[in-house]
Amino acid sequence: MSTEDRLDALERRVRELEDTIAIYQVLASYGPSVDGGAGDAVHQLWTEDCRYDTDTGSGGMSSRDEVATMANNVGGVPPRFAHVINTPIVVVDGDTAVATGHSTTYRRDGERFYPDRVSANRWELERVDGRWRTKLRVNRLLDGSPEARAVLARGLRESLEG
Amino acid sequence: MSTEDRLDALERRVRELEDTIAIYQVLASYGPSVDGGAGDAVHQLWTEDCRYDTDTGSGGMSSRDEVATMANNVGGVPPRFAHVINTPIVVVDGDTAVATGHSTTYRRDGERFYPDRVSANRWELERVDGRWRTKLRVNRLLDGSPEARAVLARGLRESLEG
Amino acid sequence: MSTEDRLDALERRVRELEDTIAIYQVLASYGPSVDGGAGDAVHQLWTEDCRYDTDTGSGGMSSRDEVATMANNVGGVPPRFAHVINTPIVVVDGDTAVATGHSTTYRRDGERFYPDRVSANRWELERVDGRWRTKLRVNRLLDGSPEARAVLARGLRESLEG
Repeated sequence: MSTEDRLDALERRVRELEDTIAIYQVLASYGPSVDGGAGDAVHQLWTEDCRYDTDTGSGGMSSRDEVATMANNVGGVPPRFAHVINTPIVVVDGDTAVATGHSTTYRRDGERFYPDRVSANRWELERVDGRWRTKLRVNRLLDGSPEARAVLARGLRESLEG
Repeated sequence: MSTEDRLDALERRVRELEDTIAIYQVLASYGPSVDGGAGDAVHQLWTEDCRYDTDTGSGGMSSRDEVATMANNVGGVPPRFAHVINTPIVVVDGDTAVATGHSTTYRRDGERFYPDRVSANRWELERVDGRWRTKLRVNRLLDGSPEARAVLARGLRESLEG
Repeated sequence: MSTEDRLDALERRVRELEDTIAIYQVLASYGPSVDGGAGDAVHQLWTEDCRYDTDTGSGGMSSRDEVATMANNVGGVPPRFAHVINTPIVVVDGDTAVATGHSTTYRRDGERFYPDRVSANRWELERVDGRWRTKLRVNRLLDGSPEARAVLARGLRESLEG
Protein backbone atom coordinates (compact mmCIF):
# COMPACT_ATOMS: atom_id res chain seq x y z
CA MET A 1 0.00 0.00 0.00
CA SER A 2 1.23 3.52 -0.76
CA THR A 3 2.06 5.97 2.03
CA GLU A 4 -0.99 7.97 0.96
CA ASP A 5 -3.27 4.95 1.25
CA ARG A 6 -1.85 3.98 4.63
CA LEU A 7 -2.39 7.50 5.97
CA ASP A 8 -5.94 7.55 4.63
CA ALA A 9 -6.69 4.22 6.27
CA LEU A 10 -5.16 5.30 9.59
CA GLU A 11 -7.10 8.56 9.62
CA ARG A 12 -10.34 6.69 9.04
CA ARG A 13 -9.58 4.14 11.77
CA VAL A 14 -8.53 6.80 14.29
CA ARG A 15 -11.67 8.78 13.54
CA GLU A 16 -13.79 5.69 14.30
CA LEU A 17 -12.00 5.15 17.59
CA GLU A 18 -12.39 8.82 18.53
CA ASP A 19 -16.10 8.64 17.73
CA THR A 20 -16.65 5.57 19.91
CA ILE A 21 -14.75 7.08 22.84
CA ALA A 22 -16.58 10.40 22.41
CA ILE A 23 -19.89 8.54 22.59
CA TYR A 24 -18.75 6.70 25.74
CA GLN A 25 -18.12 10.14 27.19
CA VAL A 26 -21.55 11.51 26.21
CA LEU A 27 -23.17 8.61 28.03
CA ALA A 28 -20.78 8.91 30.98
CA SER A 29 -21.87 12.56 31.20
CA TYR A 30 -25.53 11.75 31.72
CA GLY A 31 -25.24 10.79 35.39
CA PRO A 32 -23.04 13.78 36.30
CA SER A 33 -25.41 16.18 34.50
CA VAL A 34 -28.45 14.95 36.42
CA ASP A 35 -26.92 14.01 39.78
CA GLY A 36 -24.78 17.16 39.63
CA GLY A 37 -27.71 19.44 38.85
CA ALA A 38 -25.88 20.73 35.77
CA GLY A 39 -28.80 21.64 33.51
CA ASP A 40 -26.55 24.24 31.85
CA ALA A 41 -24.52 21.39 30.31
CA VAL A 42 -27.53 19.82 28.62
CA HIS A 43 -27.34 21.97 25.48
CA GLN A 44 -23.89 20.49 24.76
CA LEU A 45 -25.00 16.90 25.35
CA TRP A 46 -28.38 16.78 23.59
CA THR A 47 -29.54 18.03 20.16
CA GLU A 48 -31.94 20.93 19.92
CA ASP A 49 -34.75 18.63 18.74
CA CYS A 50 -34.04 15.81 21.21
CA ARG A 51 -36.54 13.54 22.88
CA TYR A 52 -36.27 11.31 25.97
CA ASP A 53 -38.83 8.55 25.75
CA THR A 54 -39.18 6.68 29.04
CA ASP A 55 -41.83 4.50 30.64
CA THR A 56 -41.64 6.17 34.04
CA GLY A 57 -44.70 8.00 35.35
CA SER A 58 -43.37 11.29 33.95
CA GLY A 59 -43.85 10.09 30.40
CA GLY A 60 -40.49 11.51 29.35
CA MET A 61 -39.29 14.77 27.88
CA SER A 62 -39.94 16.12 24.41
CA SER A 63 -37.51 19.04 24.23
CA ARG A 64 -34.00 20.00 25.31
CA ASP A 65 -35.41 22.59 27.71
CA GLU A 66 -37.39 19.87 29.47
CA VAL A 67 -34.24 17.73 29.83
CA ALA A 68 -32.35 20.73 31.27
CA THR A 69 -35.19 21.48 33.70
CA MET A 70 -35.18 17.86 34.84
CA ALA A 71 -31.38 17.94 35.33
CA ASN A 72 -31.66 21.12 37.38
CA ASN A 73 -34.51 19.92 39.55
CA VAL A 74 -34.34 16.16 40.09
CA GLY A 75 -31.73 16.35 42.83
CA GLY A 76 -33.12 19.43 44.57
CA VAL A 77 -35.45 17.67 46.94
CA PRO A 78 -35.75 14.16 48.40
CA PRO A 79 -35.97 11.39 47.44
CA ARG A 80 -32.37 11.32 46.22
CA PHE A 81 -31.42 9.43 43.07
CA ALA A 82 -28.15 8.37 41.44
CA HIS A 83 -28.01 7.59 37.73
CA VAL A 84 -25.43 5.07 36.51
CA ILE A 85 -25.07 4.36 32.77
CA ASN A 86 -23.23 1.21 31.78
CA THR A 87 -20.70 1.14 28.93
CA PRO A 88 -22.83 0.46 25.86
CA ILE A 89 -22.53 -1.26 22.51
CA VAL A 90 -21.76 1.55 20.03
CA VAL A 91 -22.37 1.54 16.27
CA VAL A 92 -21.17 4.63 14.37
CA ASP A 93 -22.36 5.44 10.85
CA GLY A 94 -20.89 8.73 9.62
CA ASP A 95 -22.48 11.53 11.63
CA THR A 96 -25.05 9.37 13.38
CA ALA A 97 -24.61 6.62 15.93
CA VAL A 98 -26.55 4.24 18.15
CA ALA A 99 -25.56 3.16 21.66
CA THR A 100 -27.35 0.30 23.44
CA GLY A 101 -27.01 -0.77 27.04
CA HIS A 102 -28.19 -0.90 30.62
CA SER A 103 -28.76 1.87 33.12
CA THR A 104 -29.37 1.66 36.86
CA THR A 105 -31.16 4.34 38.84
CA TYR A 106 -30.62 4.11 42.60
CA ARG A 107 -33.11 5.65 45.00
CA ARG A 108 -32.05 6.60 48.50
CA ASP A 109 -34.68 5.76 51.11
CA GLY A 110 -33.61 6.70 54.63
CA GLU A 111 -30.02 5.54 55.01
CA ARG A 112 -30.05 3.03 52.16
CA PHE A 113 -29.87 2.92 48.38
CA TYR A 114 -32.12 0.68 46.29
CA PRO A 115 -31.76 -0.11 42.58
CA ASP A 116 -35.07 1.54 41.71
CA ARG A 117 -34.86 0.98 37.94
CA VAL A 118 -32.62 -1.33 35.93
CA SER A 119 -33.44 -0.47 32.33
CA ALA A 120 -32.73 -1.11 28.67
CA ASN A 121 -31.59 1.94 26.74
CA ARG A 122 -31.27 2.96 23.12
CA TRP A 123 -29.42 6.22 22.49
CA GLU A 124 -29.54 7.71 18.99
CA LEU A 125 -26.82 10.32 18.60
CA GLU A 126 -25.85 12.90 16.00
CA ARG A 127 -22.64 14.80 15.40
CA VAL A 128 -23.64 18.49 15.50
CA ASP A 129 -20.99 21.25 15.30
CA GLY A 130 -18.28 18.61 15.80
CA ARG A 131 -19.77 17.24 19.01
CA TRP A 132 -21.76 14.02 19.55
CA ARG A 133 -25.17 14.72 21.11
CA THR A 134 -28.17 12.62 22.04
CA LYS A 135 -31.16 13.06 19.72
CA LEU A 136 -33.28 10.27 21.21
CA ARG A 137 -33.03 8.21 24.36
CA VAL A 138 -35.44 5.32 24.77
CA ASN A 139 -35.54 3.84 28.28
CA ARG A 140 -37.59 0.76 29.24
CA LEU A 141 -37.73 -1.04 32.57
CA LEU A 142 -36.28 -4.57 32.46
CA ASP A 143 -39.32 -6.20 34.01
CA GLY A 144 -39.64 -8.86 31.34
CA SER A 145 -41.69 -6.70 28.97
CA PRO A 146 -41.19 -7.59 25.29
CA GLU A 147 -40.54 -3.93 24.51
CA ALA A 148 -37.60 -3.67 26.92
CA ARG A 149 -36.15 -6.91 25.60
CA ALA A 150 -36.54 -5.73 22.01
CA VAL A 151 -34.54 -2.55 22.74
CA LEU A 152 -31.52 -4.67 23.72
CA ALA A 153 -31.88 -7.30 21.01
CA ARG A 154 -32.21 -4.64 18.29
CA GLY A 155 -29.06 -2.76 19.30
CA LEU A 156 -27.10 -5.99 19.62
CA ARG A 157 -28.15 -7.25 16.20
CA GLU A 158 -27.36 -3.91 14.55
CA SER A 159 -23.86 -4.08 16.01
CA LEU A 160 -23.26 -7.60 14.71
CA GLU A 161 -24.38 -6.79 11.16
CA GLY A 162 -21.62 -4.18 10.81
CA MET B 1 12.26 7.73 12.50
CA SER B 2 11.46 7.10 8.82
CA THR B 3 7.97 7.57 7.44
CA GLU B 4 7.80 3.80 7.02
CA ASP B 5 8.68 3.19 10.66
CA ARG B 6 6.21 5.79 11.88
CA LEU B 7 3.43 4.24 9.81
CA ASP B 8 4.32 0.78 11.12
CA ALA B 9 4.23 2.01 14.70
CA LEU B 10 0.94 3.83 14.21
CA GLU B 11 -0.69 0.80 12.61
CA ARG B 12 0.39 -1.35 15.53
CA ARG B 13 -0.88 1.15 18.12
CA VAL B 14 -4.20 1.66 16.34
CA ARG B 15 -4.67 -2.10 16.12
CA GLU B 16 -4.16 -2.40 19.88
CA LEU B 17 -6.72 0.33 20.55
CA GLU B 18 -9.19 -1.29 18.16
CA ASP B 19 -8.71 -4.63 19.90
CA THR B 20 -9.36 -3.17 23.35
CA ILE B 21 -12.48 -1.33 22.21
CA ALA B 22 -13.71 -4.43 20.37
CA ILE B 23 -13.33 -6.43 23.57
CA TYR B 24 -15.23 -3.78 25.54
CA GLN B 25 -17.98 -4.28 22.98
CA VAL B 26 -18.00 -8.08 23.29
CA LEU B 27 -18.49 -7.73 27.04
CA ALA B 28 -21.05 -4.94 26.60
CA SER B 29 -22.95 -7.36 24.34
CA TYR B 30 -23.36 -10.03 27.01
CA GLY B 31 -26.20 -8.30 28.88
CA PRO B 32 -28.14 -7.43 25.72
CA SER B 33 -27.77 -11.01 24.41
CA VAL B 34 -29.21 -12.54 27.57
CA ASP B 35 -31.68 -9.86 28.69
CA GLY B 36 -32.74 -9.38 25.06
CA GLY B 37 -33.29 -13.10 24.48
CA ALA B 38 -30.97 -12.98 21.46
CA GLY B 39 -29.61 -16.52 21.45
CA ASP B 40 -29.07 -16.18 17.70
CA ALA B 41 -26.26 -13.66 18.39
CA VAL B 42 -24.32 -16.07 20.58
CA HIS B 43 -22.44 -17.70 17.70
CA GLN B 44 -20.85 -14.33 16.86
CA LEU B 45 -19.89 -13.59 20.48
CA TRP B 46 -18.54 -16.95 21.67
CA THR B 47 -16.13 -19.45 20.11
CA GLU B 48 -17.39 -22.81 18.93
CA ASP B 49 -15.55 -24.60 21.78
CA CYS B 50 -16.46 -22.08 24.50
CA ARG B 51 -17.18 -22.76 28.14
CA TYR B 52 -18.93 -20.72 30.82
CA ASP B 53 -17.71 -21.80 34.23
CA THR B 54 -19.87 -20.37 37.01
CA ASP B 55 -20.57 -21.24 40.63
CA THR B 56 -24.33 -20.81 40.37
CA GLY B 57 -26.57 -23.81 40.89
CA SER B 58 -26.67 -24.48 37.14
CA GLY B 59 -23.00 -25.42 37.12
CA GLY B 60 -22.40 -23.44 33.94
CA MET B 61 -22.41 -24.23 30.26
CA SER B 62 -19.95 -26.34 28.31
CA SER B 63 -20.88 -25.54 24.71
CA ARG B 64 -21.97 -22.64 22.57
CA ASP B 65 -25.36 -24.22 22.04
CA GLU B 66 -25.91 -24.28 25.80
CA VAL B 67 -25.03 -20.58 26.03
CA ALA B 68 -27.48 -19.82 23.21
CA THR B 69 -30.21 -21.86 24.86
CA MET B 70 -29.64 -20.00 28.13
CA ALA B 71 -29.80 -16.64 26.32
CA ASN B 72 -33.05 -17.63 24.63
CA ASN B 73 -34.70 -18.95 27.78
CA VAL B 74 -33.54 -17.06 30.85
CA GLY B 75 -35.84 -14.10 30.28
CA GLY B 76 -38.86 -16.10 29.15
CA VAL B 77 -40.40 -16.68 32.55
CA PRO B 78 -40.18 -15.02 35.99
CA PRO B 79 -38.13 -14.31 37.95
CA ARG B 80 -36.69 -11.53 35.78
CA PHE B 81 -32.97 -10.84 35.73
CA ALA B 82 -30.78 -8.05 34.35
CA HIS B 83 -27.11 -8.65 33.61
CA VAL B 84 -24.70 -5.72 33.89
CA ILE B 85 -21.02 -6.19 32.99
CA ASN B 86 -18.60 -3.55 34.21
CA THR B 87 -15.81 -2.16 32.02
CA PRO B 88 -12.94 -4.59 32.57
CA ILE B 89 -9.17 -4.56 32.63
CA VAL B 90 -8.11 -5.81 29.18
CA VAL B 91 -4.82 -7.42 28.19
CA VAL B 92 -4.36 -8.24 24.50
CA ASP B 93 -1.67 -10.62 23.24
CA GLY B 94 -1.91 -11.11 19.47
CA ASP B 95 -5.06 -13.08 18.74
CA THR B 96 -5.88 -13.87 22.37
CA ALA B 97 -6.91 -11.59 25.20
CA VAL B 98 -8.03 -11.61 28.82
CA ALA B 99 -10.60 -9.28 30.38
CA THR B 100 -11.08 -9.10 34.16
CA GLY B 101 -13.79 -7.31 36.09
CA HIS B 102 -17.05 -7.25 38.00
CA SER B 103 -20.54 -8.18 36.95
CA THR B 104 -23.84 -7.55 38.69
CA THR B 105 -26.94 -9.65 38.17
CA TYR B 106 -30.16 -8.03 39.36
CA ARG B 107 -33.18 -10.10 40.23
CA ARG B 108 -36.65 -8.60 40.13
CA ASP B 109 -38.83 -9.75 43.01
CA GLY B 110 -42.29 -8.24 42.94
CA GLU B 111 -41.84 -4.54 42.17
CA ARG B 112 -38.19 -4.31 43.21
CA PHE B 113 -34.74 -5.20 41.92
CA TYR B 114 -32.07 -6.79 44.10
CA PRO B 115 -28.38 -7.21 43.28
CA ASP B 116 -28.60 -10.99 43.34
CA ARG B 117 -24.98 -11.67 42.39
CA VAL B 118 -21.96 -9.35 42.40
CA SER B 119 -19.19 -11.44 40.89
CA ALA B 120 -15.57 -11.62 39.80
CA ASN B 121 -15.09 -12.50 36.14
CA ARG B 122 -12.28 -13.69 33.92
CA TRP B 123 -13.01 -13.67 30.19
CA GLU B 124 -10.54 -15.41 27.88
CA LEU B 125 -11.11 -14.30 24.30
CA GLU B 126 -9.85 -15.29 20.87
CA ARG B 127 -9.90 -13.53 17.54
CA VAL B 128 -11.68 -15.92 15.16
CA ASP B 129 -12.49 -14.87 11.57
CA GLY B 130 -11.55 -11.29 12.46
CA ARG B 131 -13.97 -11.06 15.39
CA TRP B 132 -13.18 -11.24 19.12
CA ARG B 133 -15.16 -14.01 20.84
CA THR B 134 -15.31 -15.43 24.34
CA LYS B 135 -13.68 -18.85 24.71
CA LEU B 136 -13.96 -19.07 28.50
CA ARG B 137 -15.86 -17.07 31.08
CA VAL B 138 -15.15 -17.80 34.73
CA ASN B 139 -17.64 -16.25 37.17
CA ARG B 140 -17.32 -16.44 40.95
CA LEU B 141 -19.52 -14.83 43.61
CA LEU B 142 -17.74 -12.12 45.63
CA ASP B 143 -18.68 -13.58 48.98
CA GLY B 144 -15.13 -13.51 50.33
CA SER B 145 -14.13 -16.84 48.84
CA PRO B 146 -10.42 -17.10 48.04
CA GLU B 147 -11.26 -18.32 44.55
CA ALA B 148 -13.29 -15.22 43.68
CA ARG B 149 -10.58 -12.97 45.06
CA ALA B 150 -7.91 -14.84 43.10
CA VAL B 151 -9.78 -14.25 39.81
CA LEU B 152 -9.49 -10.50 40.30
CA ALA B 153 -5.92 -10.46 41.64
CA ARG B 154 -4.70 -12.65 38.77
CA GLY B 155 -6.17 -10.45 36.04
CA LEU B 156 -4.88 -7.31 37.71
CA ARG B 157 -1.34 -8.66 38.06
CA GLU B 158 -1.28 -9.89 34.46
CA SER B 159 -2.22 -6.37 33.32
CA LEU B 160 0.55 -4.74 35.34
CA GLU B 161 3.26 -7.08 34.05
CA GLY B 162 2.67 -5.89 30.46
CA MET C 1 -1.33 18.59 4.47
CA SER C 2 2.17 17.12 4.11
CA THR C 3 2.92 13.53 5.02
CA GLU C 4 4.93 14.85 7.95
CA ASP C 5 2.00 16.91 9.24
CA ARG C 6 -0.42 14.04 8.84
CA LEU C 7 1.89 11.71 10.77
CA ASP C 8 2.31 14.32 13.52
CA ALA C 9 -1.44 14.77 13.81
CA LEU C 10 -2.07 11.02 13.88
CA GLU C 11 0.57 10.45 16.54
CA ARG C 12 -1.01 13.13 18.72
CA ARG C 13 -4.52 11.73 18.26
CA VAL C 14 -3.43 8.15 18.92
CA ARG C 15 -1.62 9.27 22.06
CA GLU C 16 -4.81 10.92 23.33
CA LEU C 17 -6.81 7.77 22.70
CA GLU C 18 -4.16 5.64 24.42
CA ASP C 19 -4.22 7.97 27.42
CA THR C 20 -7.99 7.80 27.77
CA ILE C 21 -8.04 4.00 27.50
CA ALA C 22 -5.11 3.73 29.96
CA ILE C 23 -7.08 5.83 32.44
CA TYR C 24 -10.15 3.64 31.97
CA GLN C 25 -7.87 0.74 32.89
CA VAL C 26 -6.48 2.44 36.02
CA LEU C 27 -10.03 2.96 37.26
CA ALA C 28 -11.06 -0.56 36.22
CA SER C 29 -8.14 -1.81 38.32
CA TYR C 30 -9.38 -0.25 41.54
CA GLY C 31 -12.06 -2.87 42.26
CA PRO C 32 -9.78 -5.85 41.47
CA SER C 33 -7.00 -4.39 43.66
CA VAL C 34 -9.28 -4.06 46.69
CA ASP C 35 -11.66 -6.99 46.19
CA GLY C 36 -8.71 -9.15 45.14
CA GLY C 37 -6.60 -8.21 48.14
CA ALA C 38 -3.76 -7.13 45.84
CA GLY C 39 -2.08 -4.46 47.92
CA ASP C 40 1.17 -5.23 46.10
CA ALA C 41 -0.32 -3.70 42.94
CA VAL C 42 -1.07 -0.37 44.59
CA HIS C 43 2.38 1.11 43.96
CA GLN C 44 1.77 0.79 40.21
CA LEU C 45 -1.70 2.35 40.37
CA TRP C 46 -1.19 5.28 42.76
CA THR C 47 1.51 7.97 42.97
CA GLU C 48 3.93 7.98 45.86
CA ASP C 49 2.34 11.14 47.32
CA CYS C 50 -1.28 10.07 46.73
CA ARG C 51 -4.29 10.78 48.86
CA TYR C 52 -7.74 9.18 49.05
CA ASP C 53 -10.21 11.66 50.46
CA THR C 54 -13.51 10.00 51.37
CA ASP C 55 -16.41 10.83 53.66
CA THR C 56 -16.69 7.34 55.13
CA GLY C 57 -16.03 6.86 58.82
CA SER C 58 -12.39 5.98 58.10
CA GLY C 59 -11.68 9.53 56.96
CA GLY C 60 -9.64 8.26 54.03
CA MET C 61 -5.99 7.53 53.41
CA SER C 62 -3.12 10.00 53.17
CA SER C 63 -0.33 7.81 51.77
CA ARG C 64 0.23 5.01 49.31
CA ASP C 65 1.11 2.63 52.11
CA GLU C 66 -2.26 3.26 53.70
CA VAL C 67 -4.02 2.52 50.40
CA ALA C 68 -2.02 -0.73 50.08
CA THR C 69 -2.85 -1.73 53.66
CA MET C 70 -6.53 -1.08 53.00
CA ALA C 71 -6.40 -3.17 49.79
CA ASN C 72 -4.74 -6.03 51.65
CA ASN C 73 -7.11 -5.98 54.59
CA VAL C 74 -10.59 -4.89 53.55
CA GLY C 75 -11.58 -8.27 52.18
CA GLY C 76 -9.96 -10.37 54.90
CA VAL C 77 -12.85 -10.48 57.30
CA PRO C 78 -16.62 -10.01 57.07
CA PRO C 79 -18.54 -7.96 56.14
CA ARG C 80 -17.68 -8.55 52.49
CA PHE C 81 -17.64 -5.65 50.03
CA ALA C 82 -17.45 -5.36 46.25
CA HIS C 83 -16.22 -2.16 44.61
CA VAL C 84 -17.54 -1.26 41.18
CA ILE C 85 -16.24 1.83 39.36
CA ASN C 86 -18.29 3.14 36.48
CA THR C 87 -16.72 4.30 33.21
CA PRO C 88 -15.90 7.98 33.86
CA ILE C 89 -15.66 11.22 31.95
CA VAL C 90 -11.93 11.65 31.22
CA VAL C 91 -10.06 14.89 30.48
CA VAL C 92 -6.36 14.56 29.65
CA ASP C 93 -3.97 17.52 29.73
CA GLY C 94 -0.40 16.43 28.94
CA ASP C 95 0.84 14.35 31.86
CA THR C 96 -2.12 15.05 34.14
CA ALA C 97 -5.73 13.99 33.83
CA VAL C 98 -9.06 14.10 35.64
CA ALA C 99 -11.68 11.35 35.65
CA THR C 100 -15.18 11.94 37.04
CA GLY C 101 -17.90 9.41 37.65
CA HIS C 102 -19.92 7.15 39.91
CA SER C 103 -18.86 4.24 42.06
CA THR C 104 -20.97 1.65 43.83
CA THR C 105 -19.83 -0.29 46.88
CA TYR C 106 -21.87 -3.38 47.62
CA ARG C 107 -22.00 -4.85 51.09
CA ARG C 108 -22.86 -8.48 51.61
CA ASP C 109 -25.12 -9.05 54.62
CA GLY C 110 -26.01 -12.70 55.14
CA GLU C 111 -26.90 -14.10 51.73
CA ARG C 112 -27.62 -10.76 50.06
CA PHE C 113 -25.78 -7.80 48.58
CA TYR C 114 -26.83 -4.20 49.22
CA PRO C 115 -25.60 -1.06 47.42
CA ASP C 116 -24.01 0.37 50.55
CA ARG C 117 -22.56 3.49 48.92
CA VAL C 118 -23.34 5.09 45.57
CA SER C 119 -20.82 7.92 45.31
CA ALA C 120 -19.48 10.79 43.25
CA ASN C 121 -15.78 10.53 42.44
CA ARG C 122 -13.04 12.80 41.20
CA TRP C 123 -9.78 11.09 40.27
CA GLU C 124 -6.75 13.27 39.60
CA LEU C 125 -4.07 11.29 37.77
CA GLU C 126 -0.47 11.81 36.76
CA ARG C 127 1.72 10.05 34.24
CA VAL C 128 4.76 8.84 36.22
CA ASP C 129 7.43 6.66 34.56
CA GLY C 130 5.14 6.22 31.56
CA ARG C 131 2.21 4.90 33.61
CA TRP C 132 -0.97 6.72 34.65
CA ARG C 133 -1.44 6.70 38.43
CA THR C 134 -3.97 8.18 40.84
CA LYS C 135 -2.65 11.13 42.84
CA LEU C 136 -5.98 12.09 44.45
CA ARG C 137 -9.32 10.36 44.71
CA VAL C 138 -12.20 12.31 46.17
CA ASN C 139 -15.26 10.21 47.05
CA ARG C 140 -18.55 11.66 48.30
CA LEU C 141 -21.81 9.84 49.08
CA LEU C 142 -24.65 10.80 46.71
CA ASP C 143 -27.09 11.59 49.51
CA GLY C 144 -28.06 14.98 48.09
CA SER C 145 -25.16 16.83 49.72
CA PRO C 146 -24.03 19.92 47.77
CA GLU C 147 -20.44 18.70 47.97
CA ALA C 148 -21.19 15.38 46.25
CA ARG C 149 -23.20 17.15 43.57
CA ALA C 150 -20.40 19.67 43.02
CA VAL C 151 -17.87 16.88 42.39
CA LEU C 152 -19.93 15.67 39.44
CA ALA C 153 -20.84 19.10 38.07
CA ARG C 154 -17.23 20.26 38.19
CA GLY C 155 -15.86 17.28 36.26
CA LEU C 156 -18.63 17.53 33.69
CA ARG C 157 -18.06 21.24 33.09
CA GLU C 158 -14.30 20.77 32.78
CA SER C 159 -14.90 18.12 30.11
CA LEU C 160 -17.20 20.40 28.10
CA GLU C 161 -14.79 23.35 28.11
CA GLY C 162 -12.13 21.32 26.26
